Amino acid sequence: MPHTANDPKKQSWISVKQDSDFPIQNIPFGVFLTRDDVITIGTRIGDKAIDLGALHQLGYFENIPLTDDIFLQDSLNDFISDGKKTWRLVRNRISELFEKNNQELQNNKEHCKIVLFDLDEIEMQLPVQIGDYTDFYSSKEHATNVGTMFRDPNNALLPNWLHIPVGYHGRSSSIIPSGIPVRRPMGQTLPLGSSEPVYGPSQRVDFELEMAFITTDANLLGEPIPVDEAEDYIFGMVLFNDWSARDIQKWEYVPLGPFLAKNFASSMSPWIVTIDALEPFRVKGPEQNPEPLAYLKSSGKKSFDINLEVDLIPENGEALTITKSNFKYMYWNMAQQLAHHTVNGCKVNSGDMMASGTISGPTPDSYGSMLELTWAGKNPIKLKDGSERKFIEDGDTITMRGYCKNKDYRIGFGEVSSKLLPPFDPKKGKKS
Amino acid sequence: MPHTANDPKKQSWISVKQDSDFPIQNIPFGVFLTRDDVITIGTRIGDKAIDLGALHQLGYFENIPLTDDIFLQDSLNDFISDGKKTWRLVRNRISELFEKNNQELQNNKEHCKIVLFDLDEIEMQLPVQIGDYTDFYSSKEHATNVGTMFRDPNNALLPNWLHIPVGYHGRSSSIIPSGIPVRRPMGQTLPLGSSEPVYGPSQRVDFELEMAFITTDANLLGEPIPVDEAEDYIFGMVLFNDWSARDIQKWEYVPLGPFLAKNFASSMSPWIVTIDALEPFRVKGPEQNPEPLAYLKSSGKKSFDINLEVDLIPENGEALTITKSNFKYMYWNMAQQLAHHTVNGCKVNSGDMMASGTISGPTPDSYGSMLELTWAGKNPIKLKDGSERKFIEDGDTITMRGYCKNKDYRIGFGEVSSKLLPPFDPKKGKKS
Repeated sequence: MPHTANDPKKQSWISVKQDSDFPIQNIPFGVFLTRDDVITIGTRIGDKAIDLGALHQLGYFENIPLTDDIFLQDSLNDFISDGKKTWRLVRNRISELFEKNNQELQNNKEHCKIVLFDLDEIEMQLPVQIGDYTDFYSSKEHATNVGTMFRDPNNALLPNWLHIPVGYHGRSSSIIPSGIPVRRPMGQTLPLGSSEPVYGPSQRVDFELEMAFITTDANLLGEPIPVDEAEDYIFGMVLFNDWSARDIQKWEYVPLGPFLAKNFASSMSPWIVTIDALEPFRVKGPEQNPEPLAYLKSSGKKSFDINLEVDLIPENGEALTITKSNFKYMYWNMAQQLAHHTVNGCKVNSGDMMASGTISGPTPDSYGSMLELTWAGKNPIKLKDGSERKFIEDGDTITMRGYCKNKDYRIGFGEVSSKLLPPFDPKKGKKS
Repeated sequence: MPHTANDPKKQSWISVKQDSDFPIQNIPFGVFLTRDDVITIGTRIGDKAIDLGALHQLGYFENIPLTDDIFLQDSLNDFISDGKKTWRLVRNRISELFEKNNQELQNNKEHCKIVLFDLDEIEMQLPVQIGDYTDFYSSKEHATNVGTMFRDPNNALLPNWLHIPVGYHGRSSSIIPSGIPVRRPMGQTLPLGSSEPVYGPSQRVDFELEMAFITTDANLLGEPIPVDEAEDYIFGMVLFNDWSARDIQKWEYVPLGPFLAKNFASSMSPWIVTIDALEPFRVKGPEQNPEPLAYLKSSGKKSFDINLEVDLIPENGEALTITKSNFKYMYWNMAQQLAHHTVNGCKVNSGDMMASGTISGPTPDSYGSMLELTWAGKNPIKLKDGSERKFIEDGDTITMRGYCKNKDYRIGFGEVSSKLLPPFDPKKGKKS
C-alpha cells in the first residue's frame, strides 16, 4: 500500500486551513534549526513543523529499519540514500501518527511539546547537501522565445532541441534556501554597439521560474539509468529560482555556456515534496514529435499538474503576480532528463539536484522570466505603484509559489522568496 | 620563513632516487588506504608513503594547532580549510622531521614501522571531496586550434576570449583518481551528413591534457576575491585528464555548452602538490594583449614552469609519448581564473577544483588532445606497433606526467593514468 498517505478522506489532529499547502496528504521533508538551536530533519502539517529527530528518539518509528541518527542531521542526504521503500514507510507512518483518530502522540502532551513547533520557532535550512546541480532547458516555449529573440524567429529551436533534453552543469555552492537575499552581481559585459567590454553591476538581473528534483544514489559510474526506472530514483521536488544576469550571460556564453551569469545565486523552496505526494496529480506531458530515440522513450503520465506563479514585490510596495505557469508544460519529463543525464554512465548521487529550466507556458502571461515577459525590455511590466520594470531592481523581492489542486485537497510547495540587494561594496570591507 | 622546506640542499633520511618526483622539497598531500584498511591523510618522500594521521597521534605535530583527527579523514577538505598558515607549518614540520640529520623519528624503529609504507602497501584515493568543479578554457593555442577546425581560421578566437577566462561548470561526481578505468560512453550523436541523430558508443573518445588547482574556503556568497589575493586561497595542483567524447559534444553543446561529452569521467593524479612547493618554478605567463580589465590585471610571475607529457599505451603494447607541453603556455593564470570566477560573488569552498582547460603549446607536437594532434582525425598518430590512432581505442591507456626541474631538484606530480574500457553492456546486468 504505497499510497495510504494519499487517502483524500484522511484528516489530521493538527488543524489545517482550507487552502493550506500542507495537509496531512503532503508530508514534505526539510531541515530546520529549532528554538533550542538544534538542527533536525522535519516535516510539516498545516502551520506546525514536526521534529522527526525527536519523534524517532521517542520511539515512534520503531518498526521501520532506520539508523538512530538518521533524522538528527543537517541534510536529508542519508535518509534519501535509504531509498524509496524507506521514504514510503516513514511517510505512511507519519500519516498514521497524525491522523485524527490516532491517539498515540496526540494525547501525550509532553511528547507533543517536544516534537511540534510553530513556524516562527524554526528556521528552515537547505534540505540537502547538493553534490552536483544540473539545469535543463526543457520548456519548448522558453527555448522558442529565447531563440526568437536572440537568433532566428524562423528557426528558433536549435537542431538538437527536439532530440535531447539539453542541459548543463551549474554551481552547487551558490544554491540558497528561500529567504536569503541575493546581491546584484558585478561582472563583465559588452555594451551595445561597443567592441570593448566593461566591468560593473549587471543591468539585467532576472529570475527564472523553475522546479527542481532531488535524486537518490542511482547508479555506479559507467552505468546508465533506464528511462523506465528513472522515477524510482527521484525523491521529490522543490520550487527553484535560477537567478540570472542576462547581460553577463550574453557576453560570456559562447562557446561553453552560461557561467557567472548563473552562479551568483539560485534560491530553492525548503520543503521537498515527495513524488509519492504528487501521484494524484500526474498528467501526460506534451506530445513529442519527432519521437525520441529508444533510450528516451517514455509513456504514460510522466508529468505533473503543478500550478506556478511569481510575484514581484517592490521595496515597501504591493505585490503583483507577474506570471502564472504550470509544470505540465515541460516538453521533456524528469524520467527522460535523468535517463539522458546517465546514458553515458555519469554518476548520480543522493542529494543531487536537477532543475527543469525556465518553465514558460504558451501565452505571454505564462512566461517564466522577465526576459520573456518584457520581451528583452521592450514591453515593461507596470507595477501597482505605477513604476515599471524591464528587469529586477534593487529592493525587489521575487516570490514563487507552486501547488497542485484537485476536488479533495491541495498539495503545495510553500514558496521560494528572495530579495535583490545592491551590489557588493568592497569599500565596506571584505566580510561586510 | 614560509619556504624553509624548499631549501635545495636539504636531503632526507628516506632514500630518494635521482629522478624522483618526490624529493623532501615536494611534500605533497594525499589520501590513502593502508595495508590495515585504514584511511588516512598522508604525504610521500621518494617511494615511501607517510601516514600523517599516525604521525599526529604519535605527537609529532604537537606544536601546531591542529584538531586531533585532522589527518584521520577520507578527504583533505578540513585540513585545506585550516588555511595557508597551517599548511605551511605542517609542510615545514614534515620537512624538518624527515631531514637527514633529524633523529626524532629516524631512530625510532617502532614509530617508523607505524608511519611508513611502501607504495604497494597503500591504495591512493581521491584526495578531496570535490564540492564544485569548474573547467576553464585558458590555453590560447587550444582555443585557436578548436576555432580553426570548427569555425573560421581567420577568426578562430571568439570575441570574448581575450577578455575573460572563459569557463564552465563540470560534474564533480565523475572525477576519479588515477588507476580507475573509464568506460567508453554511450550517447546521442548526429552522423555526418544526416539530419537524424543516432544512439551508440562514442566514436571519438579523447583525452584533454589539463592541470587543476584545489581551493580553500575563500569568500562568503556575494563577495569577490581580488586578483592579488587569489593565490592565497589555492592549496595546490594536480594533473587532470578531462576525458571527452567529441562526437557527443558536437551535437549537444549549443547553446548551453558541453555536458554528457565531458561528465562520464575525469581522472586526476592523487598527490596534491602545494603552491609552496612550486614557488621555485614561477615564471611569467604570456603577454596579455589587450590588457585585461582592472579586476583581472595581475603582475609578476603568476605562472609555473611545469613540463607535461602524455603517453598512449595500447593494450599489451609499447608506450608512445604523443605530446609534450607545459603549464606555462596558459594565457590566463590561476589568480585571474579565481578572481573572475568570484567577481559576481560566486562562493568558493574548500576542496573545490578548477581545471585549466586543455594545455596546448605553440607547436603541433605540444598539442593537448587527440583532436588537435590528429587534426580531427586527418593526421592519425602512428604507434610503435604500426597501428594508427585518430582517437582513443578500447584498451588504450592514457598516462600523463608533470614535473618541474631546476639545477637542484625536480618537483613532480607523479602521474594520472587510466585505461579506456569498452562501453557498458546492459545485458551483463546492472551492477556488472
